[in-house]
Amino acid sequence: MKLKIAIQGVKGSNHHQVAKDYFGENIELVECMSFDELVCQTLSGRADQAVMAIENSIAGSIIPNYALIHHNNLHVIGEHFLNIHHNLMVLPGQKIEDIKEVHSHPMALLQCKDFLKSYAHIKLVEAVDTAETAQQIQEKQLMNIAAIAPKAAAELYGLEIIANEIQTISNNSTRFLIINKENKALPPEEINKASIRFIADHKRGSLAALLNVMSDCNLNLTKIQSLPVIERPWKYAFFVDVTFDAYQDFTKAKSLLEIMTEEFKILGEYKNARV
Amino acid sequence: MKLKIAIQGVKGSNHHQVAKDYFGENIELVECMSFDELVCQTLSGRADQAVMAIENSIAGSIIPNYALIHHNNLHVIGEHFLNIHHNLMVLPGQKIEDIKEVHSHPMALLQCKDFLKSYAHIKLVEAVDTAETAQQIQEKQLMNIAAIAPKAAAELYGLEIIANEIQTISNNSTRFLIINKENKALPPEEINKASIRFIADHKRGSLAALLNVMSDCNLNLTKIQSLPVIERPWKYAFFVDVTFDAYQDFTKAKSLLEIMTEEFKILGEYKNARV
Repeated sequence: MKLKIAIQGVKGSNHHQVAKDYFGENIELVECMSFDELVCQTLSGRADQAVMAIENSIAGSIIPNYALIHHNNLHVIGEHFLNIHHNLMVLPGQKIEDIKEVHSHPMALLQCKDFLKSYAHIKLVEAVDTAETAQQIQEKQLMNIAAIAPKAAAELYGLEIIANEIQTISNNSTRFLIINKENKALPPEEINKASIRFIADHKRGSLAALLNVMSDCNLNLTKIQSLPVIERPWKYAFFVDVTFDAYQDFTKAKSLLEIMTEEFKILGEYKNARV
Repeated sequence: MKLKIAIQGVKGSNHHQVAKDYFGENIELVECMSFDELVCQTLSGRADQAVMAIENSIAGSIIPNYALIHHNNLHVIGEHFLNIHHNLMVLPGQKIEDIKEVHSHPMALLQCKDFLKSYAHIKLVEAVDTAETAQQIQEKQLMNIAAIAPKAAAELYGLEIIANEIQTISNNSTRFLIINKENKALPPEEINKASIRFIADHKRGSLAALLNVMSDCNLNLTKIQSLPVIERPWKYAFFVDVTFDAYQDFTKAKSLLEIMTEEFKILGEYKNARV
């Protein structure tokens, strides 16, 4: 039986690419039009696992996705980095002068801002997904509209790329998480990264003390994000990612942080995909 | 002459409310359809100052706005907190059963998710601004379409509120920054908050060491955000907000952090609006 993988967006999207890179070709896609739907499909068991974008080097974290994982008690069981390439695509024969509107995901529009600035006559329209617009241009034979989408979408939906690699910054790496309803724990010797969440005081030095503990336990911080805790003015929730060489170092830090923080929780223990 | 204030969105939006709360009624609004445009208007001098949403208690930081401030060398000269109230509004006489689509800013749709879930027949459509949809419903006399917007928008555009306070979490505070091209420095005794940016190593303990310094200098951390530095794999940029009682404590921390970090920069020194 094929593994059912939930992705945000449709075939040809970046999420689709990650699903192929991570799980191989022999998968059944569950296309979702929002991250909420993606979570529902995973919780209900209609998808076995899900691929979820979590941060990129230009726009930072997609913080609502952290909240989705946390509130639904999902488990992070892996990560994958994808270099994003944005291409401008249209119905065959259309030229850049013909384009009146460019449709894409807000993040893609943001990442191609500099390119788009030189075409002031083109209106930018936000869409839910990159590849979906490509699909619609083909289905509805939309003239004067271009999509910004991955190359795979142009191939899949028979569109012509009239400008490639139009992202402002060439090294545009996006991090995706692999999400599961159950905690499919790896053997400890394969685990060298973890995502944790905890609550700490606003009190002077409290975060510094926690970071000292992590550092003493040989953990490297690869990400930190504070978020005020709703209804509790002087408390902050922290989402932190750490890497480590030895799992027992993490175990030690874990037992200390459990005592020093409130609501300490491990969102996932997995293999670092960036080496 | 009236002070010209750039806001994201149109009259009746939350940005408009903040402009009124902060600067009073005697201002001239410069309505901008994106944060990019808001920055352009401020840099060009067509607006004297700007109001910019920066984070809220549900969705966290609007990280691209930090990048906009940093890359354009703008100055944060103040902050303001606004409790956001979302209302569902339509042309007078329309009922909830008549509604086929709800249009609003993605953040507003997100914040009213639970309410909207009980009306599965209603399609959610993302818009650039909350108040703008209200304006368009009036101008084009759109039936079957509702806006989620502040109360002021209903009054301004003659719409009827058919459900009020539909946000999931009642305590929905959004933080806005007041932005200026020049650094209008306050007298030191009025300054008790600062936004800074610096780059630090991925190296174990480097952030902990910096936070120790801040704590030793009596600074309280109210926000921290890491962002990988593009093209420099093992370096991280940090956006940090700190509060303090005595300006000389901040001066001391500043001189130490300048030595210990790379590209240390003060985005703004201002008065803490949350006490």
